[in-house]
Amino acid sequence: MARSPRRAGAPRLQLPLLCLLLQGATAILFAVFVRYNHETDAALWHWGNHSNLDNEFYFRYPSFQDVHVMVFVGFGFLMAFLQRYGFSSVGFTFLLAAFALQWSTLIQGFFHSLHGGYIHVSVNSMINADFCAGAVLISFGAILGKTGPAQLLLMTVLEVTLFGINEFVLLNLLRVKDTGGSMTIHTFGAYFGLVLSRVLYRPQLEKSKHRQGSVYHSDLFAMIGHTCEQTACFKEQLHCTPEGPQDERSSLRPSCHGGPMGSPPSPPGLAWEPHTGTIFLWIFWPSFNSAPTTLGDGQHRTALNTYYSLSASTLGTFAMSALVGERGRLDMVHIQNAALAGGVMVGTAGEMMLTPFGALAAGFLAGTVSTLGYKFFTPILEAKFKVQDTCGVHNLHGIPGVLGALLGVLVVGLATHEAYGEGLGSVFPLIAKGQRTAMSQAMYQLFGLFVTLMFASVGGALGGLLLKLPCLGSPADCQCYEDQVYWEVPGEHEDAAQGPLKAEEQDTQA
Amino acid sequence: MARSPRRAGAPRLQLPLLCLLLQGATAILFAVFVRYNHETDAALWHWGNHSNLDNEFYFRYPSFQDVHVMVFVGFGFLMAFLQRYGFSSVGFTFLLAAFALQWSTLIQGFFHSLHGGYIHVSVNSMINADFCAGAVLISFGAILGKTGPAQLLLMTVLEVTLFGINEFVLLNLLRVKDTGGSMTIHTFGAYFGLVLSRVLYRPQLEKSKHRQGSVYHSDLFAMIGHTCEQTACFKEQLHCTPEGPQDERSSLRPSCHGGPMGSPPSPPGLAWEPHTGTIFLWIFWPSFNSAPTTLGDGQHRTALNTYYSLSASTLGTFAMSALVGERGRLDMVHIQNAALAGGVMVGTAGEMMLTPFGALAAGFLAGTVSTLGYKFFTPILEAKFKVQDTCGVHNLHGIPGVLGALLGVLVVGLATHEAYGEGLGSVFPLIAKGQRTAMSQAMYQLFGLFVTLMFASVGGALGGLLLKLPCLGSPADCQCYEDQVYWEVPGEHEDAAQGPLKAEEQDTQA
Amino acid sequence: MARSPRRAGAPRLQLPLLCLLLQGATAILFAVFVRYNHETDAALWHWGNHSNLDNEFYFRYPSFQDVHVMVFVGFGFLMAFLQRYGFSSVGFTFLLAAFALQWSTLIQGFFHSLHGGYIHVSVNSMINADFCAGAVLISFGAILGKTGPAQLLLMTVLEVTLFGINEFVLLNLLRVKDTGGSMTIHTFGAYFGLVLSRVLYRPQLEKSKHRQGSVYHSDLFAMIGHTCEQTACFKEQLHCTPEGPQDERSSLRPSCHGGPMGSPPSPPGLAWEPHTGTIFLWIFWPSFNSAPTTLGDGQHRTALNTYYSLSASTLGTFAMSALVGERGRLDMVHIQNAALAGGVMVGTAGEMMLTPFGALAAGFLAGTVSTLGYKFFTPILEAKFKVQDTCGVHNLHGIPGVLGALLGVLVVGLATHEAYGEGLGSVFPLIAKGQRTAMSQAMYQLFGLFVTLMFASVGGALGGLLLKLPCLGSPADCQCYEDQVYWEVPGEHEDAAQGPLKAEEQDTQA
Repeated sequence: MARSPRRAGAPRLQLPLLCLLLQGATAILFAVFVRYNHETDAALWHWGNHSNLDNEFYFRYPSFQDVHVMVFVGFGFLMAFLQRYGFSSVGFTFLLAAFALQWSTLIQGFFHSLHGGYIHVSVNSMINADFCAGAVLISFGAILGKTGPAQLLLMTVLEVTLFGINEFVLLNLLRVKDTGGSMTIHTFGAYFGLVLSRVLYRPQLEKSKHRQGSVYHSDLFAMIGHTCEQTACFKEQLHCTPEGPQDERSSLRPSCHGGPMGSPPSPPGLAWEPHTGTIFLWIFWPSFNSAPTTLGDGQHRTALNTYYSLSASTLGTFAMSALVGERGRLDMVHIQNAALAGGVMVGTAGEMMLTPFGALAAGFLAGTVSTLGYKFFTPILEAKFKVQDTCGVHNLHGIPGVLGALLGVLVVGLATHEAYGEGLGSVFPLIAKGQRTAMSQAMYQLFGLFVTLMFASVGGALGGLLLKLPCLGSPADCQCYEDQVYWEVPGEHEDAAQGPLKAEEQDTQA
Repeated sequence: MARSPRRAGAPRLQLPLLCLLLQGATAILFAVFVRYNHETDAALWHWGNHSNLDNEFYFRYPSFQDVHVMVFVGFGFLMAFLQRYGFSSVGFTFLLAAFALQWSTLIQGFFHSLHGGYIHVSVNSMINADFCAGAVLISFGAILGKTGPAQLLLMTVLEVTLFGINEFVLLNLLRVKDTGGSMTIHTFGAYFGLVLSRVLYRPQLEKSKHRQGSVYHSDLFAMIGHTCEQTACFKEQLHCTPEGPQDERSSLRPSCHGGPMGSPPSPPGLAWEPHTGTIFLWIFWPSFNSAPTTLGDGQHRTALNTYYSLSASTLGTFAMSALVGERGRLDMVHIQNAALAGGVMVGTAGEMMLTPFGALAAGFLAGTVSTLGYKFFTPILEAKFKVQDTCGVHNLHGIPGVLGALLGVLVVGLATHEAYGEGLGSVFPLIAKGQRTAMSQAMYQLFGLFVTLMFASVGGALGGLLLKLPCLGSPADCQCYEDQVYWEVPGEHEDAAQGPLKAEEQDTQA
Repeated sequence: MARSPRRAGAPRLQLPLLCLLLQGATAILFAVFVRYNHETDAALWHWGNHSNLDNEFYFRYPSFQDVHVMVFVGFGFLMAFLQRYGFSSVGFTFLLAAFALQWSTLIQGFFHSLHGGYIHVSVNSMINADFCAGAVLISFGAILGKTGPAQLLLMTVLEVTLFGINEFVLLNLLRVKDTGGSMTIHTFGAYFGLVLSRVLYRPQLEKSKHRQGSVYHSDLFAMIGHTCEQTACFKEQLHCTPEGPQDERSSLRPSCHGGPMGSPPSPPGLAWEPHTGTIFLWIFWPSFNSAPTTLGDGQHRTALNTYYSLSASTLGTFAMSALVGERGRLDMVHIQNAALAGGVMVGTAGEMMLTPFGALAAGFLAGTVSTLGYKFFTPILEAKFKVQDTCGVHNLHGIPGVLGALLGVLVVGLATHEAYGEGLGSVFPLIAKGQRTAMSQAMYQLFGLFVTLMFASVGGALGGLLLKLPCLGSPADCQCYEDQVYWEVPGEHEDAAQGPLKAEEQDTQA
């Protein structure tokens, strides 16, 4: 195999140089602007006469760690369902999240915690940076398999910036409540990614082809079958698009079309990774929603509401999946995704006096709607709206995020002094001070959703145009969902590619 | 493949309707009875003049999260050792636990925290609900592979109810100490499941057949061999029991008997899931036992004792496994199960002044006995007692649970004012107040074990009768340990089933 | 298969007896010396009039649990990259860590917390014991696949002892700062293991042969090919070295050489375990470095510095991996290892006023150097220095540990009263009291690194001589990286070994 599967114009130095550039720029900005805050600076902390007990670290750090697990294990493994794209799914998640948390420390710092010309960091900035990284990974889910790492890093630069602005507009200007991020994280991340995926639409990429290659719809059986049949295509594919514009060429080469997904699967063992992702997301979501709330009852209540909401969305998902499944059978894709919708659903209202019943009802609705979305809406999304949503983020984050924002509007609108007592000031300071009525706060919440959808859509469109820059070397259609373009994987090596054929000959002769 | 593998009488609507019914009933009961407690309600918390530091959330929530990981990752993945039952193992664990925690919030609330007609929830109710879900999953382990999801949901309704009653009798009436649940969780869960499994005994299910299909006793080698050999049986099996009573038919069809376990394995990658389950259970067990103890020294001491007990049970397990193994070799089944017995063993006594040495000795005993149980007692259990214990819960939870209860009797009997000092009141309030002697408290502990065994046995028997109701559509023998009955998996699809055969033809011709 | 693959002289009773002996000795020493401390003892805690809030459990236990996950999940799974050595990788990790934490409780207790003739234990001793277990696992990584469990247990006895002495010299005598263990854990563990591996050098073990069998460099494709080709060798190998000195015999038998690594892979599904290990180590490293620091700002700042350092080392690793990769492609081995170097790097300086920029710069340097080490230095290490470093611990722990120690020297040397204010006393008590200047403390730090390298080298050499004792039954060359020597795995059973051949015949005839 003499030729690189990489585009001639996409130099091998692109990713390293971009990493170095971004890391260098971030480091310089850190040197100039970022300082320890009064709880992390030795001099500042000991200057005041604090008890160690009062350090916010002890209130927030356990929740931060849970959020950190969700971002790096949960989102990464949830995406590892493509047989031949496992290295990229978890590897790029790692890269994007690691960069996003540095960049968002800067962006969020500029907008939220710039005091005396410096950004002051602490466990709170770590939580917020991880939240922003979560939004980036949601968008990544919509375009998974169709973009290279350099493109994704540039998308991250843009998205983190817009995330910070949108968050600033909502939380600081509109004074909207959204601690768990139904709007700022899930709605923003999902629609940014979906619009971006629309701009990058590839008409020649067969509809839902990637599903065929998912670990759900294949077993060892199928693997072996495909292996033998498609070895030829597999080898040929590595040479595809030797020069010239790839997108056009590849559409002319049917052998490339039939091949990529079914051919020799890279590392076995991916099958359970998505479930691992799901389970860790499900377990730690109460910490996600409660990590940045007010201390005391606020954090406690948010965790409780999220816990109930998730349990109900799980039952709703099982019910719907069996109801719409062939012969009443369950679909693991539904279980591994829609069961999480309950966490998204109470991102805004979880801090409020939603009541345990309200949490159950909201979660059940989210699980139900999300499952129906996977079954009925995803095909329409591609066929009618030309949005190729690889991971189904519209069903898991988009719709439940919007529903969660609307639930927030409802619960805010119903807020009374009676229900919140003296606690009204900590949840709704403006209402407690009489500057807003519950109804006007609810309207602000609704406007916040509208603003988020605007920012996400415009941002996603801009992102799409950015990623279409020819110099970024977008993968050709036949290179989509393929690890080999970016990773050293075994199948491509001369010896490995030859070995099995020899072995087969021996079998037949024996 | 035109016919459904499901029984004619087991309608596809059964699971959805049951989910909707149970979720609906739970939601209504939540609406009527469940309220935030004084630490989660905005008005109640802010009415009192609390410091946020005092909110129990900060003392319990990190432990709760560890328990939550154990229940959802640990128990679920520990059961994922059956090659063709992976989707069901982790999927049903998810479903049962999600429902059990809602239902046990109600049941435990009625018995333990009903004040003024309302159940008040907080992080404590979350911990207790997760504990109850753990007991349900232990029972599930005894009948894994032999029941459908609708049956399991009904078992959960019954078991959670009895769990709540048993717990009420022990903790509130007998005033027994059992914070880590050697009795209330492990003994109860294990014997409930074992008696239930006895009632559901299937004589035609070959002895330990499921072991043959475990991921431990197969490698890719074996898989491929079986695949080719058993494709016919596999396909045929999907058509088995087209109508009529399945249990009789299937026992007449030898091809169905030979086949199910060895034939084409569903998703690869299961092999390490049990180990992941084990490791997370092992790591977080100190949090499990210490989550609901008294604050301060009680929680600290329990974590320490459990940590030592587990480390000793690990060494005991390795020693025994190599001692009884063929040519001195280790058996991964022992390591992945018996090493955990140390955590079960100190469920009752962990809170007490067991001493670090006592924790080591107890753990070592538990690991040793549990390993010997896997080696020598499990075969007897099936052959003599007609109990088909799929996951070996008798060795991991049953025997160590009983031993843990007896250890509790011993340690309580040895309790002195000298050893506990002023702390006696927080561990043994009745002894501190002089209402009981250490010896009489020990007798109550022993009686608590007896009561638990009674509740578990009677409950398991009732559960078995309930699950035998014909309308529940129990899977036929040849459908046991098979994902395809309940899940959309690939092997069954026309194309996938045909593909490999075609590919083989090509190989041979090439 | 009539003959045992075990050496005639290595009796089946060796491992069980050693486990029993070590556990028995530890238990007796616990009985004599180990007692609850004032925070875990019921009488002592309630004697003082403490608030439960003050119990150190609530400050340290969440961090301890994260450390516990790192040691048992992170290190174990990170090593599970050898296809045929998965059971041993995770199983022996489990055994060694479980014993190491008991033994180090004793050793560290003797040196650090012996008061009135008793070792007093609490969450702090749990954290320190886990740290020591981490060092043992680092050394295990250097010799992975080449030693048996009895050898490893003896190595643990020796290494834990020397670890405790080295730690005592550094922290108590030299008064060096090293809370996250760049020196005491990483440098010590790495060079102990590397020198030990040098002493155990096996010239006939082909260079980097184990890499060929790693899960990265194989897919199902390759597996199947090898399977057919090497069945004969595989079977033969089980009989290899029936008597006589193994090392010489095996070098004469070419079939044994070609075979072990490529032949039938034991359990599939290992491929992602290393990534799981990496991700959990990466996520929880901030807890590792901050677990034993001073409370308040110290713990908070350490977590923050580690978080930034890791994110920069991730970008550095991606940049370098793509830069040195063939055609600009990434190597998963780099990503899964070098990205963690940032955590090692700030083990000493993380507690200090490193500044966020300093953390980024340090992490980036560590990731870069570690990646280059994997690419260019590992081959030299084996070829020139005759060190067979199975897991590349030199790149992940050795070099970054030394760099971290040097970074500590630098940051200590730059410490000023201005930067630390009143907090200087908690980070550098001797400087605050005027007993040392920043420069002299920096020199002590440098001397600490030198002492650590001495202890590690001499200890590793002693360990190597110990492990060469003939009675310990070292595995023959052809048994290296083979689970079957120590575990019951399927491929060896008569039926399983025959099955596939029969099946292949059927295929060909069909």
